This record gives sequence, C-alpha cells and structure tokens, in this order.
Amino acid sequence: MFVILVYDVEQKRVAKVLKTCRKYLYWVQNSVLEGEITEANLVKLKTELEKIIHRDTDSIIIYRFRTTRYSAIETLGIKKGGEENIL
Amino acid sequence: MFVILVYDVEQKRVAKVLKTCRKYLYWVQNSVLEGEITEANLVKLKTELEKIIHRDTDSIIIYRFRTTRYSAIETLGIKKGGEENIL
Repeated sequence: MFVILVYDVEQKRVAKVLKTCRKYLYWVQNSVLEGEITEANLVKLKTELEKIIHRDTDSIIIYRFRTTRYSAIETLGIKKGGEENIL
Repeated sequence: MFVILVYDVEQKRVAKVLKTCRKYLYWVQNSVLEGEITEANLVKLKTELEKIIHRDTDSIIIYRFRTTRYSAIETLGIKKGGEENIL
C-alpha cells in the first residue's frame, strides 16, 4: 500500500523518529514521509515508533491508500529537508 | 479533488495559516488538513497562504488526489487539535 506519514514530535526525538521512518519510507520534506510499504513493514514501523515517541506529547499520523498514489505534490515556501539532505 | 495539506511555519504565523486553511479544508490534527476542494478554491487558498507565509522560513506541502480518498488514517501518540478544538 501507499502511505503518507506526518510526525509532530518533540525536537529531541525528531532525529530518531526520522531515522526510523526512513528505513521504510522516503523522506519528502519537513515532517512528511511517503512510500510504498507492506502491511508487515508498516506493523514493524509502528512498533518501532511507539517505542520512541512519548504518547503524551508526540503525535504521528499515517494515511493509508489502497492502490493510488497522489496525482501531484506542490510546495509553497522553502523545501526543508528531503532526500538530498542526508542526516 | 481531494487534498492533504501539511504546513510547517513559524509559531507566530500558525494561527493565521490554520485559520486560512480552515476556510477551505477540514483540520485533521497538528499541522495537517484535508478535504475536497475545487481547483478554483485551491488557487484562492494558495494565493492567500502565499501572502501570509515567509518563503525563506515557512513551508507548506499540498498533496493532490484526483478521485480517491485514503482508505484509512491512523494515529500514534496524542491527538493534538482536530475539529473538536475550535480556535
């Protein structure tokens, strides 16, 4: 399936969350990742993320799409991050 | 079309960006909004947002989908915001 993941976590956990997400997904920019992922890997990713984030302050949203990718992606303002910025 | 919008703007502009986005889209949570929108309204929204954001520090991503909505949305951690929290 295709997923879009958006995280909103405390600054000190951003690097770890991003690193974990990037094992499975492509980093679009800022706090957004996307990619094709299997159900099994999505379960793995969620399990790993749940060990990192603090449930009382951090938040992660995962949009799941059965088959389709988006038809276009647009950006206003700067591009913060993305695949060219390797951590 | 269906769009998902993610903003990453400086704190002092968050309220204004969110208020503008909510004229056209439904606030999911955190920095994420979604909804059905016409091409004309999307142009309006982008024009309004470009007047608010600072292109050197702020960033907004818009995913466009032709027909489909997502099949599921999942959240890890807390739900920050969303429709129940009226500004």
